[in-house]
Amino acid sequence: MSSTKSSINQTDPRVVFGRQLAELRRQAGMSQEALALESGLARSYLGSVERGQRNIALLNICRLAAALSLRPSDLLQAL
Amino acid sequence: MSSTKSSINQTDPRVVFGRQLAELRRQAGMSQEALALESGLARSYLGSVERGQRNIALLNICRLAAALSLRPSDLLQAL
Repeated sequence: MSSTKSSINQTDPRVVFGRQLAELRRQAGMSQEALALESGLARSYLGSVERGQRNIALLNICRLAAALSLRPSDLLQAL
Repeated sequence: MSSTKSSINQTDPRVVFGRQLAELRRQAGMSQEALALESGLARSYLGSVERGQRNIALLNICRLAAALSLRPSDLLQAL
């Protein structure tokens, strides 16, 4: 028996990661555009990561952490 | 000017992750075979991750952490 469904599973690691990333980005006072520029990732890709639509891989996790002046493990704290 | 080269860059996040994973696996007293079985990942894939040859993505990081009874962020502590 599964719990109540929604279009995006709120406990999906991709969703939890995306929310955490958006929160850390806001804490750093950065827009999606600024973080995209600083990390070298496309803004559209970053947006889809924050919406929990991407299974982001290690190298991009490291790029985002560096752009936020955080450790890669900080981006996984909510998981 | 780059530092001394080797066939695999020792500071590559994939290499650092792979070594940390292998260390945590050994600390848990698990063989590659046991961790592969517990995580649902192929042993050959797990071997390539530990050798730093894979840009492992979030969902597989979470699967490995769960199989090791660790938090996903624990697997990134060395990064």
